[in-house]
Amino acid sequence: MSEKENNIIIREAVRSDVKAIMQLIRELALYEKAPEEVTVSEKQFEECGFGNSPVWWALVAEFDGKLIGMALYYIRYSTWKGPKMYLEDLIVNEKWRGKGVGKMLFDGLIKKAKEKNWNGMSWQVLTWNESAIQFYKKYEGVQLDDGWTNGSLEFQKTKSY
Amino acid sequence: MSEKENNIIIREAVRSDVKAIMQLIRELALYEKAPEEVTVSEKQFEECGFGNSPVWWALVAEFDGKLIGMALYYIRYSTWKGPKMYLEDLIVNEKWRGKGVGKMLFDGLIKKAKEKNWNGMSWQVLTWNESAIQFYKKYEGVQLDDGWTNGSLEFQKTKSY
Repeated sequence: MSEKENNIIIREAVRSDVKAIMQLIRELALYEKAPEEVTVSEKQFEECGFGNSPVWWALVAEFDGKLIGMALYYIRYSTWKGPKMYLEDLIVNEKWRGKGVGKMLFDGLIKKAKEKNWNGMSWQVLTWNESAIQFYKKYEGVQLDDGWTNGSLEFQKTKSY
Repeated sequence: MSEKENNIIIREAVRSDVKAIMQLIRELALYEKAPEEVTVSEKQFEECGFGNSPVWWALVAEFDGKLIGMALYYIRYSTWKGPKMYLEDLIVNEKWRGKGVGKMLFDGLIKKAKEKNWNGMSWQVLTWNESAIQFYKKYEGVQLDDGWTNGSLEFQKTKSY
């Protein structure tokens, strides 16, 4: 690892990171071929993370004062296993991929989840995202399961509700 | 609908429902062919739902003082859409299936999610659970998406963490 890469800092997200985190979220949506699907506003996003009752938390990767990656999570409740970390998004800025930033973030998440006494972590990955799947497979004990279908209902899109 | 079925009450779960809810969870695990995977204790389960910082909530279906179904959810944070309801489990006691209890619970969830100003709901269903898939398809606007793989890491199962 070069000296530059050694200067990457992994830390908890703070309110002033909101703008840069949203930028990374938009970058991921573009990569996942659905940029128009990001309809949350920066204000709502900030309120949900740093208001009176936070529902999301994040680790960020910082280099030279700039955010180059982030991992956003919330508390999932598994009726079989109890509370777990649910990793919603793990994003590394395109220029920084392949340099170990994702691993630094994921290692940070494991540490955080263990500190919180959660039983584990879960997340989803697009079936065609082969590089992400290879990344997760490197972790001992990771299970990848294709047997599920995602269901969703968006109230804005349907007049009946 | 018979008079009996009309007497089904949908209400929010309270602490004294914990034992009966756990029983339904075990019933679902058996149906999903994984009864040994339910490792959460009743005490942990109760604490997570009714302690100082609840992480799960539930609606229950009651008939004649007995729980015949339940729907357990938590708050998911979608980085694209904002806060949503995540439906972890929707369970109807075997004897009561096909009598509209699932629909009463799911309708109750939609109402609850709208009250909370959440943007929608999401959940997962096993790809082989055809009857559940047919149930969800009856709701206007429901999207079912097969393109994802579930990832998970359980700390108890892996010594490295």
